[in-house]
Formats: sequence, structure tokens, C-alpha cells
Amino acid sequence: MSSSDIFIGETIGTALLILLGGGVCAAVTLKASKARNAGWLAIAFGWGFAVLTAVYVSTPLSGAHLNPAVTLALAIKNDDWSTLPVYWGGQLLGAMIGALLVWIAYYGQFQAHLTDKDIVGETQQPARVKSVEAEEKGAGPVLGIFSTGPEVRVAWMNLATEIIGTLVLIIAVLTQGLSDDGKGLGALGGLITALVVTAIGLSLGGPTGYAINPARDLGPRIIHALLPLPNKGGSDWRYAWIPVVGPLIGGALGAGLYNLAFA
Amino acid sequence: MSSSDIFIGETIGTALLILLGGGVCAAVTLKASKARNAGWLAIAFGWGFAVLTAVYVSTPLSGAHLNPAVTLALAIKNDDWSTLPVYWGGQLLGAMIGALLVWIAYYGQFQAHLTDKDIVGETQQPARVKSVEAEEKGAGPVLGIFSTGPEVRVAWMNLATEIIGTLVLIIAVLTQGLSDDGKGLGALGGLITALVVTAIGLSLGGPTGYAINPARDLGPRIIHALLPLPNKGGSDWRYAWIPVVGPLIGGALGAGLYNLAFA
Amino acid sequence: MSSSDIFIGETIGTALLILLGGGVCAAVTLKASKARNAGWLAIAFGWGFAVLTAVYVSTPLSGAHLNPAVTLALAIKNDDWSTLPVYWGGQLLGAMIGALLVWIAYYGQFQAHLTDKDIVGETQQPARVKSVEAEEKGAGPVLGIFSTGPEVRVAWMNLATEIIGTLVLIIAVLTQGLSDDGKGLGALGGLITALVVTAIGLSLGGPTGYAINPARDLGPRIIHALLPLPNKGGSDWRYAWIPVVGPLIGGALGAGLYNLAFA
Amino acid sequence: MSSSDIFIGETIGTALLILLGGGVCAAVTLKASKARNAGWLAIAFGWGFAVLTAVYVSTPLSGAHLNPAVTLALAIKNDDWSTLPVYWGGQLLGAMIGALLVWIAYYGQFQAHLTDKDIVGETQQPARVKSVEAEEKGAGPVLGIFSTGPEVRVAWMNLATEIIGTLVLIIAVLTQGLSDDGKGLGALGGLITALVVTAIGLSLGGPTGYAINPARDLGPRIIHALLPLPNKGGSDWRYAWIPVVGPLIGGALGAGLYNLAFA
Repeated sequence: MSSSDIFIGETIGTALLILLGGGVCAAVTLKASKARNAGWLAIAFGWGFAVLTAVYVSTPLSGAHLNPAVTLALAIKNDDWSTLPVYWGGQLLGAMIGALLVWIAYYGQFQAHLTDKDIVGETQQPARVKSVEAEEKGAGPVLGIFSTGPEVRVAWMNLATEIIGTLVLIIAVLTQGLSDDGKGLGALGGLITALVVTAIGLSLGGPTGYAINPARDLGPRIIHALLPLPNKGGSDWRYAWIPVVGPLIGGALGAGLYNLAFA
Repeated sequence: MSSSDIFIGETIGTALLILLGGGVCAAVTLKASKARNAGWLAIAFGWGFAVLTAVYVSTPLSGAHLNPAVTLALAIKNDDWSTLPVYWGGQLLGAMIGALLVWIAYYGQFQAHLTDKDIVGETQQPARVKSVEAEEKGAGPVLGIFSTGPEVRVAWMNLATEIIGTLVLIIAVLTQGLSDDGKGLGALGGLITALVVTAIGLSLGGPTGYAINPARDLGPRIIHALLPLPNKGGSDWRYAWIPVVGPLIGGALGAGLYNLAFA
Repeated sequence: MSSSDIFIGETIGTALLILLGGGVCAAVTLKASKARNAGWLAIAFGWGFAVLTAVYVSTPLSGAHLNPAVTLALAIKNDDWSTLPVYWGGQLLGAMIGALLVWIAYYGQFQAHLTDKDIVGETQQPARVKSVEAEEKGAGPVLGIFSTGPEVRVAWMNLATEIIGTLVLIIAVLTQGLSDDGKGLGALGGLITALVVTAIGLSLGGPTGYAINPARDLGPRIIHALLPLPNKGGSDWRYAWIPVVGPLIGGALGAGLYNLAFA
Repeated sequence: MSSSDIFIGETIGTALLILLGGGVCAAVTLKASKARNAGWLAIAFGWGFAVLTAVYVSTPLSGAHLNPAVTLALAIKNDDWSTLPVYWGGQLLGAMIGALLVWIAYYGQFQAHLTDKDIVGETQQPARVKSVEAEEKGAGPVLGIFSTGPEVRVAWMNLATEIIGTLVLIIAVLTQGLSDDGKGLGALGGLITALVVTAIGLSLGGPTGYAINPARDLGPRIIHALLPLPNKGGSDWRYAWIPVVGPLIGGALGAGLYNLAFA
């Protein structure tokens, strides 16, 4: 597996992951979306099937890590750090591209949600939002389409939740035989991993929104900070380290537990 | 694979796709349906499992394209345009047959929804709708059972959303090894494709209702225009080019990206 | 495959099908059930996974027909009618046993739903129902746990819906290679069939509740007529022929279409 | 398969099962959870995918019983009781660890739900609950995150429901060829078992919350009794024997039925 295949595979795969994962958050959150208020089950299945899509597409190129915590766990497990920078680079770039694509796909919905200007063209439902209301809500609902945030904001609690969630993912992925030799998961592995991620969303997503992947959170947060969205509020940078550090700790612990119990 | 097998396979497969896909829209939309208001998750799973059913049925005959954008992408990828017209013909005919079957299966529900005449027989719930109300709604809820429509009506936005959604589908289908030699997807491929389509529905369906398939939109729109439905409103022909052109552009871009990155 | 294996396999399999399928209807309908009002998506997945469970259990014994319409279609396809009576007998007996097991599993819920007497013991929520209210509703909600019923009661419409739904099932099952030589569906076949049945529920269940299986409707209706349920209302026998005749017609048409297009 | 592998596999696997299964109950129940009120379908899929995760992780170590009733059924089927104590020990320990991890992952949510003290830090929504209200509810909603409880409290009814639910599980697992020689279920077996458990939840979970596993209920109940949760109410010990005895009877009956009909 060449470095360029790895980089391209991780970029395309993580872009798909965030396009579909961020997309379901946009679909459920934004005004003038047909899927508005579709609920947490839609979110959990949406992210799970986003993983499924991204894994099956990128497996032949890069083995489908799509997550710096997975790459870290494999580097520890195999004590081989040579390809880690290429993986991490592709993952972060892909996550940023994916978030941009969500913005393009939901451009009209972002406009309807965030502004009180008339939408160019017509909407099937009244889509005006008072900008005052939007400002009051601050970084809440729109940042949530890009990055995660806690319901109860206490650093050790939020870290603990992210570590536990990532640990589940890493143990599941490693015991399914994901290797870093380019073969990736077996034929069923992508489906099983997708349902494991759905499980983590349903079961461990309540407190922090389950980043369990540093690129998934950081890449879109950068895009949120850069995009010219009206009334978008802050990007909540003081929380941003938790969904990066927590999943990396979870990845390291997962690799350690795997080496202890399963290797 | 003979031309007649292709034509029959695509006709039966696309008819099943639209019968089940249009069916879930009817089930969720129409009065006097047990599934009324079952929500967006039901729509997304309904279309996904419609794909699953149609793929497994038509694979032995035609390789299960079921979508002119998929056929276009394969023609570009393989630079072989010989069977494209047969595929497209079967797909459009099948989509029209499927929409007719939805109308037959939900005949009583269409009557209850659209008229204020007494239903012949009995309903378990009062099913009268004032024809004035129905007329006011115009082409809205009933056309939505046949064809897609935008929440925010701006051509470039709607095109962009359809292109992005179709691109995801095409990349997923091509990397799973769908070939046009008649073998279609492997044993798991239909299941994975079905879940990818569910993902696209959950994540990218909010703005335009995810046609991502010209036949899926155009065939049922023709049937809507022809059917003697009372108070049915217009068929929204000025929007009709977008769910045809958008998916074809997405298919061409998908084939190009595949040839660049994966071939 | 011996006749006794067929009979035992179909009895156990159809009992599981109705226990889980009728069970989800009880879970969603009855007072004092944790799953009350869980919605149509729960119903459709519940019946789908009921099929999955029953198929994987009974495949080694009988090949898992579990449906007189499937048995009829195979008899037509193979022009072999020798085992049809054994299959049909096991299916009807199994469906009756399954309905009885639903009644036992939900005994307290039936009591809470149908009577205004005090429940023996305690409930976590006030579970009294005025018997007058229950009687007013007549055969509605409780018969629906056992058998299907139409939302708009017109014989030709209800027949058409059941024929179309069954046709989808039969075409899907036959093209997956179900044979009557005892091998049943392949490893993935049960999963795919389960999701096809979920699709039929989501997409074609709205008008009549998708019997698509004569034993699934008739067996539990007999049990409803025999059970000593208080205030249970009638068993709606004048509708009972439709979910028997409709699926059989659909099965015959499905076999014919299969022989024409796929054989 | 060594005893230590069995013990470690069952401990890790059952901990994952309860972490994800108890987790979805916490996610749906507790204040300040993003998944609050996600409904019964979320619960049923959450437990199903919890089984999926746990089975694929622990299969290489212990064959993934994860349930004393499954271990009992296999001991009866094979008349080999030598490893039963190791399995049961690992399962109970794992269930207790899993419940502890739920408490850690949802620490802030438990605080917000059970106390009227200010949460340390900030919440995005007002999370105060009057302690009086919480006390009134008694052992209800928070015990439900740990252990099961009946809607209608009558011992024979609750036992019957648990026996029937476990019987379905055992028959499904045994006919899929789960063996106690360390190989566990085949590649698809974990997925099918997960969907069977989802089916049992949807269809038979209404009356008692479907323990169908003595360790799943007893381990977390012990943790509920020990944890320093404020206003937590009692642990409902008088009900605790039913979700232990019921599933064991169901396991024994399942093994007997398997030996009669399928062996």
C-alpha cells in the first residue's frame, strides 16, 4: 500500500464519513429539511451507515481507518509508526472536505435556519427565523452539525465518556482482525463496524454526542470557524481538546487491552 | 446477458423499486393508512429495503442497475455504450409500472385523501377530507408520493444536492465491484447498497428528497400527470429537469472520480 | 426431508413467526406494555425480525416456507404437490400455537387493556379501562393483535393490496433460490427475506396490514374466536377470506411470473 | 479453550453487553441526555447491537455465551457441566463491571436526574430536578437503567413472559450451531443473534423488559444496591428472583426442545 493510496483513501473515506454523518445532523436540525426532528435513532443509524459507506469505499485503498484513534491503536498494536502521519493527514483533510460538502448540500437550509432574509426563490414552508432568536441560541444547534458538545460540561466526565466510547470501538475493530497491511476488514467487517458505531451512538452518545474520533470533531470545527455562516456563534474552542484527547486515550487503552487479553 | 434479459430485469427491478419506494411515501402520507406519520426514518429504511428487494431480484437477469445514473457511470468507466439504451428503456418503463402499482395498492387511501365523497364501503376512521383543503395544498403531499421536490427552490442548490447524493451512490456501487458483465454485485453487495441508499436518505435527503435516479423521478411524474386522481394539482414540470440532470452529472463525476482514484 | 420433519419444522417456525409478529402488535397496542405506541417502524421491523428468527430456526427441518402462499408457489414452480398438505397443516397449527403464546406472554396486558377489574397485584401505571370504552371500540385494537383488517373496507381493493404484497414476497423468495428440496435459503437468504418483509410492511402495509400469508391471518383469528378474552368483540369473519385468498392468488401469480421471466 | 480465556472472554463480553445495553436505557431515560425519549425502538436496537458487539469481541476467547441461560442450555445439550461455573462467574462479574461503566459514562446525567444540587459546571438545558419529585418516583426510572421490572406485577405472569422470551433466544442460538468447543457462532451468527434479540425486545419486551439473561439482571441490580446514587430508591429485591429463575427455566426448556426436535 503506497503512501499516496493511503492518503487518497483516507481523504475520500473520511470525507464520505463526515458528509453523511454531518449530513444527518443537518437533516435533523435545520429548518426547511424534510427530515427535521427525525430523532436520535435517525442520528445513530445515519452515523452508522456513514461508517459503512466510508469503510467499503476506502478499504481497497487504505484499509479504512478513517479515525486517528484507530490508526494510533494499530500503531501501538503493531509497534509500527511509519504510516501514522499519512493516515492522520488524510483523515483531517477528509473531515474538512466532508464538512464543506454538508454546507453545500444544505446551503438553502442553513440560509433558512440562520437568517431572516428572504430565501432566494421559494420555500414550501415559512422558513424565516428571527436573527435575534438565532443569536440567542449561540453556538448550539448549528455548531452541533459540525462538532460535538457536552450536555453537562465537566471536563473529566466528558473525557471519561469519550474514552469509554472509543474503547468499545477499538476493541471491536481490533478483534475483527483489522490489520494495517492494506487488507482492512473482511467482507462482513464493515457492516459489523457500522452497527457497532450505531450501538455506541445509541448507548453512549447521550452525554457528549460521541465524537470517538479526533478528526471527526476537529476537522468540521475548523470549517465551522472558517465558513461565512451568518449568526453562527462561536466554535466552542475551549471544548475542542476533549474530543481529540479523549478518543486518543481510548485508542491507546484499547490497543493495550487488546494486547493483554486477545493477542 | 441478452438484451431481452436486460430489459426484463431492469423493468421488473425498477418496478419493484418504485412500488416499494413510492409505497412507503404513500404509507406515511395518505389518510386511512396504518403507517401514517411514521416519520423520515421509515421513509429512509423503506427506500433502502426497496433497493435491496429490487437488487436481489433483478441481479440474475440484468445485473441490477435500476438507475440511469448507474448505467451512465458504468458506460463511462468501461467506455462501452452498447447496452445503455436498453437499460434506460427498461428503467423508465419499470418506474412507470411501479408508480401504477402504488396507485392500485393504495387506491382506497388516495380516494380518502383526495376527495370528500363517501368511500364506498367503510373506513375504521373518519376519512373525509374537505376538497377545499385538498385543493389548497396543491401539488404538495400527493405529488410527493410519485416524485421529489425541493424544500428551498433554487436551481443551483437543488442540483448541487442531487449531484452530491448521486456521487456518494456511484462511488459506493463502483468500489463494490458492480460490473456490467451481468454478474452484478456480490452476495453482500445488495445489502450494502441498500444501507448506503438508506444513509443517503437520512443524511442528504433533507433538501430535495434524494431522487439520485432520473428514472425514479421522471417515470412516476409521468404517471402522476396521466392518472385520473381528483384534486391532484400540477405535476411540477418546471422542477422535473433537476432530478434528471443532477443525478446524470453525479453519475458522470462518480465514474471520473473512480477512474482517477480507484481504477 | 421426512414428512414429520417438515411438519415439526413448519409448526415450530410458524409458531415463532406469530409469537414474535403478534407479539410486536401486542407490545405496541396494549396498555401496561413498555413498548406502547412505539409506532409503525417498530411493527415493520418486529415482523421482519420475526421472519428472520423463524427462518433460521426451521430451515434445517423443513426449508422454512412458513407461509401457504410460498408453499403453493413452489408447488406450481416445481409441479410437485406431494408435500403441500403437510406444509399447510404445520403452518396453520404453528400459527395457532404462536397466537396462544402471545396471549400467555401478554396475559396481564390483555387483562389491563380489556377489563375494568383490578389487576391482581400491582401495575406501575394506572391500567384501568372502562369496559364501556373497550366495548365501544369493538373488534378493533385487540383483534389487530391476532389478525389483519382493512382501513378502507372494499373487497377488490383489499384483495389487490394483498395480491401485490404477496407477489413481491414470492418473487424475492424464488429468485433467492429457495427450493423445496429441504435446503431452504442460503446463509444470507433469511436476512434478506426478513428485510424484504420489513420493506413490504413499510411500503405496502398501510391499507390492510399486510397479511401476505394465509396461515398468519387465519390461525390467530381462530384463536381470537376461541380465547376467553373479556370484551373482545367479534373476530370479523366476513373479512377473513381476503387475507387467505389474496395471498394464494399472489403466490400463484408470483410462480407464474417467475417461470416466465427468471426460469 | 482454557478456563482463563473463557473467564476473560465472558467478563469482557458481558461487560460490553451491559455497558451498551444499560447505556441505551440511560440514554433514553436520564435528563441532560441527547437521546432522551428516543423510544422503544431505540431500546430494542440498542440491546440488539450490544449483543452484536459483545459476541464478535468475545467469540475468539470464550465462544460468546454471555448469558447463564445459554451456558445452561449448552451444558444440558452436551451433558458437559465442567466449564459452567467459569462461564457463570465471568458473566456475573462482567455484568457488574458493565453497570459500573454505565454509571461513569453517564455520571453527569445521573447527577442532573437525581439531585436538585447545581451541576458542577454548566448544562445546556436546565437540569434541576426537585428531589421530592425524584423520591416520589421511587425505584422506577433509575433502577430501570440497571435491571428489569414488570408493568403488571404477578409472579406467574412475569415468569411466563421471561420463560417464553428466553426459549426463543435459546432455540435460535442452538439451531445456528453455537457449540461450546470454543468456536462460537459462525461469521453471520452474531448478526443474526443480535437481530433475534432485537426481535425479542420488540415483541416480548412489553410486559417485563426482557431480562432473558440472569446475569444481565442480577449483576447490575447488585451495582444499583451498592452505588452511592442520591435518591435512588430501593433495588426491588423481591422481584429479583424472577429474571434469574425464568431465563434458567427457559434455557433448560430450550435445550430440551432442541434435543427433541432438532438433534
